[in-house]
Amino acid sequence: MSLEQISSNKSFDGQLIKYKFKSAALGGLYAQFNLFLPANALAGTKVPLLTYLSGLTCTEDNAAQKGNFLGPAAKEGIAILFPDTSPRGAGIEGETDSWDFGVGAGFYVNATNPKWAKHYNMLTHVTLELPQVIEAAELPVDLTRQSIFGHSMGGHGALTLYLSSVLSGVKQYRSCSAFAPIANPINCPWGQKAFNGYLQGGIEEAKEKYDATELIKKLGKEPVHVLVDYGTADNFYKNGQLLPENFLKAARDAGYDEVQVRVRSQDGYDHSYYFMSTFGADHVHFHANFLKA
Amino acid sequence: MSLEQISSNKSFDGQLIKYKFKSAALGGLYAQFNLFLPANALAGTKVPLLTYLSGLTCTEDNAAQKGNFLGPAAKEGIAILFPDTSPRGAGIEGETDSWDFGVGAGFYVNATNPKWAKHYNMLTHVTLELPQVIEAAELPVDLTRQSIFGHSMGGHGALTLYLSSVLSGVKQYRSCSAFAPIANPINCPWGQKAFNGYLQGGIEEAKEKYDATELIKKLGKEPVHVLVDYGTADNFYKNGQLLPENFLKAARDAGYDEVQVRVRSQDGYDHSYYFMSTFGADHVHFHANFLKA
Repeated sequence: MSLEQISSNKSFDGQLIKYKFKSAALGGLYAQFNLFLPANALAGTKVPLLTYLSGLTCTEDNAAQKGNFLGPAAKEGIAILFPDTSPRGAGIEGETDSWDFGVGAGFYVNATNPKWAKHYNMLTHVTLELPQVIEAAELPVDLTRQSIFGHSMGGHGALTLYLSSVLSGVKQYRSCSAFAPIANPINCPWGQKAFNGYLQGGIEEAKEKYDATELIKKLGKEPVHVLVDYGTADNFYKNGQLLPENFLKAARDAGYDEVQVRVRSQDGYDHSYYFMSTFGADHVHFHANFLKA
Repeated sequence: MSLEQISSNKSFDGQLIKYKFKSAALGGLYAQFNLFLPANALAGTKVPLLTYLSGLTCTEDNAAQKGNFLGPAAKEGIAILFPDTSPRGAGIEGETDSWDFGVGAGFYVNATNPKWAKHYNMLTHVTLELPQVIEAAELPVDLTRQSIFGHSMGGHGALTLYLSSVLSGVKQYRSCSAFAPIANPINCPWGQKAFNGYLQGGIEEAKEKYDATELIKKLGKEPVHVLVDYGTADNFYKNGQLLPENFLKAARDAGYDEVQVRVRSQDGYDHSYYFMSTFGADHVHFHANFLKA
């Protein structure tokens, strides 16, 4: 799992470094990720790690370029990890036929359908493998201080990885935020297509493990720190792919108030990076509260 | 010249609006541009206009997405105009053969070589036609308060359009800034290729009209407001395509001090948007000093 550095770009006094390595979790394929290290990390301080999960069709680059996260992270002295959104080059029949399934659309699950199970394990890749390779490479990151956020499919990923980790008691992440997340995927076309494809148990299996709205119902009184923003002019929201109201209702029914689970409807914003960049600094600062506590 | 709106994305409480229109300056082809209008403009106030010129291969989108300009412009209450970098679809033989000449590489000149002269007139397009269509459409922009900036080829464009306008007495722009500009194009391969292609008079014609280092020598004591940033790890800088030292020397020889012409060498930064976004807010605030004076 030795890391190969592909590029390094100075930004906001830090460095955005792109690495690749042979990923066991993804069946031996090469995987790439970007890691932003702020100036204090480059000077030797171990800094907190905020993982950002991208949406459908994206790579490790899109949000690093367009999210407006690097400046705020530099200011806060926080590293940001940008994983890819799926394995690349598995060569599975049909994996490049759709923009919302297969390549670029790993949905942050571990596939159980035998056709996909060797390669499509983005859950393990993000939560276990990437922290391990970062630690093995002795990068200046403090893995006891992690948080997670994401957009759309990546918002689904951030919410489910975070809530699962709270539920299991592992508590890998201190806080979670999401832009326009797919918040109740078992009840939307994107989620149903993904789960019926990747999971042998289909929607039922997903309901147990991969649906933020279902997961938060199970949490009981365990404290959480969640921030969600979505735009009212988001066509995917309007078409029922995101369903943040379902997540919000489940959170309130489970007893979480708006300090613990804050869901904000942002008037007139859409699904694009123009929306996300507007609130990017806000999300980084939200996580800094917990990462630097 | 009626404007057709293609899209509108809310960002930082403003709107980034993409328009297209049939461009006379570009020989009747359709041209697109983005215009960011901050909230105060949407509410009816006429706001200053900052024009951003992109570099080689870019369209009107790249810097709007990656430059980190919209947030600062929203804060200052300034509109930003993002033109394209060349005509599209002229169908001239060879215009898509190179990434540094033809499509995506208009170099902000008016072509005099008959082969290119009908379409490749980005100088007129940017300085005259776009302000005219904006005025004709009654967009909430105050054209008596304009400034200009750009990156690489667009930095060349910003410097030459600004300096020419000071020299001619038109004074269309109050201030000029550039990221990694091609600052002495008659002496670098990019500029020589472009000028020998577009201009009947080749380098000699360019020396008169389109070279920032030559133009500033002619200015005498006319006051100017210029800010330039370039990175020491920029490979195009290291390979002699940018030559900011030549521009700086010419400015000092002409009697301009570092208040009037400030050229900053930024340690370790490269040619990318990771560099530009780092100093994006700084440049917008620089222009705000003059646009809001």
